[in-house]
Amino acid sequence: MSGRLAVVGIGPGNAGYLTADAEAALVAADALYGYGPYLARVPERPDQKRHASDNRDEGARAKAALACAAEGASVALVSGGDPGVFAMAAVVCEEIEAGPAAWRSLDVTIVPGVTAMLAVAAKVGAPLGHDFCALSLSDNLKPWAMIERRLDAAAASGFVIALYNPVSRARPIQLGMALDRLRRQLPRSTPVVFGHAIGRADERIAVTALGDADAAEANMATLIIVGSPETRVIDRLDRGPLVYTPRMASGRQP
Amino acid sequence: MSGRLAVVGIGPGNAGYLTADAEAALVAADALYGYGPYLARVPERPDQKRHASDNRDEGARAKAALACAAEGASVALVSGGDPGVFAMAAVVCEEIEAGPAAWRSLDVTIVPGVTAMLAVAAKVGAPLGHDFCALSLSDNLKPWAMIERRLDAAAASGFVIALYNPVSRARPIQLGMALDRLRRQLPRSTPVVFGHAIGRADERIAVTALGDADAAEANMATLIIVGSPETRVIDRLDRGPLVYTPRMASGRQP
Repeated sequence: MSGRLAVVGIGPGNAGYLTADAEAALVAADALYGYGPYLARVPERPDQKRHASDNRDEGARAKAALACAAEGASVALVSGGDPGVFAMAAVVCEEIEAGPAAWRSLDVTIVPGVTAMLAVAAKVGAPLGHDFCALSLSDNLKPWAMIERRLDAAAASGFVIALYNPVSRARPIQLGMALDRLRRQLPRSTPVVFGHAIGRADERIAVTALGDADAAEANMATLIIVGSPETRVIDRLDRGPLVYTPRMASGRQP
Repeated sequence: MSGRLAVVGIGPGNAGYLTADAEAALVAADALYGYGPYLARVPERPDQKRHASDNRDEGARAKAALACAAEGASVALVSGGDPGVFAMAAVVCEEIEAGPAAWRSLDVTIVPGVTAMLAVAAKVGAPLGHDFCALSLSDNLKPWAMIERRLDAAAASGFVIALYNPVSRARPIQLGMALDRLRRQLPRSTPVVFGHAIGRADERIAVTALGDADAAEANMATLIIVGSPETRVIDRLDRGPLVYTPRMASGRQP
């Protein structure tokens, strides 16, 4: 079987985040698959077939890309951010495990990228400079009670928390519930960063405190970072504040 | 003040991980600062001053770069991986907070990169495909009891765990202690990935089970990913195994 599949992370927002390996993988492909808005960020080329899909059936998208590779094509499956973080790499693995035995012989590579939390953190300083976790708020794929348990554990033990998939049309209330839950454990002064559409023309960053954080500020393109009790804000006269979590932890309890 | 400082993540191991923005920031600099082996990955240019340092006094390195920028230079402080993850961005913020007021007026940008856990995850599949955390095992900067508390909390609540700074000459025993601690909470069959020197000529990846994981396999260039009870291994006849954590979580307790 000569086909191959590269699951390519193109980073958030714009081409500045693209790695050299990701660019090379896109150039080498005969066929591109991906969610429409991600594919739209790859320059068109007449000799490359493009298969854009909506953002719902990720399993079907992965299966189509695997089937195309199994027929001998060199396929790139385009993922925003990093494909390994709440994105297509796990979906491809799920489909390989469930699919025909021949898919286990395919040449599959994952090309990592800059995931949203790293890009948002970089915009404001270094909020992820100490131990942190990344949590998806989508309860389509796990029970809400599990999400609450993880929020409690992360906050109580001093992790900075990056929240992916904070809201969607079908899930408008999860972020508000998560922030309420975190307010039980963390000081109201805990810094919170809303990073919206990072790298895009409509990019917007807001730094606030947990006590004032308003879930209505977020939409599907927002990544939220909730600090730990150690996270600090440096005010600057003529620039936005810097938010960072020092390397040294005192052992202070929230 | 016309100087500026870019804290630039060049990714792990080789130039394939370099983003377009990171390359542009390196090209634009008059002066480069950084830990020697990272600086050595940036092509030499006669019109750029290079200030290589050892890996110990990160604070002094950040201060020197800030002072150079404050004198009007365009400075790049080169960081391996992503500067925001257990690297130089937090150090720079610490020094800005503690330093002269003028440093708060400096044009400081952080250029994110592919951090080690994303590169290691990509090499084996998608072990970070579900909720995960990143934890430094260095107890130079926090009490060991805090590290144990975080390992317990992360394992008990189902996070996949990426371990940074697993060992050093001065800290040879922490990783063994951490693995023992995790064996109290997680099944011995839990997949563990040792990613060594990713992207370098001596790159080595090993997939094992928590019951068999041997801390002696790690050194300063190793990143370890410990799965959750949901993490799976797909054996493949003629390729290495795929390790991934499915998007869907059943709520199974470890």
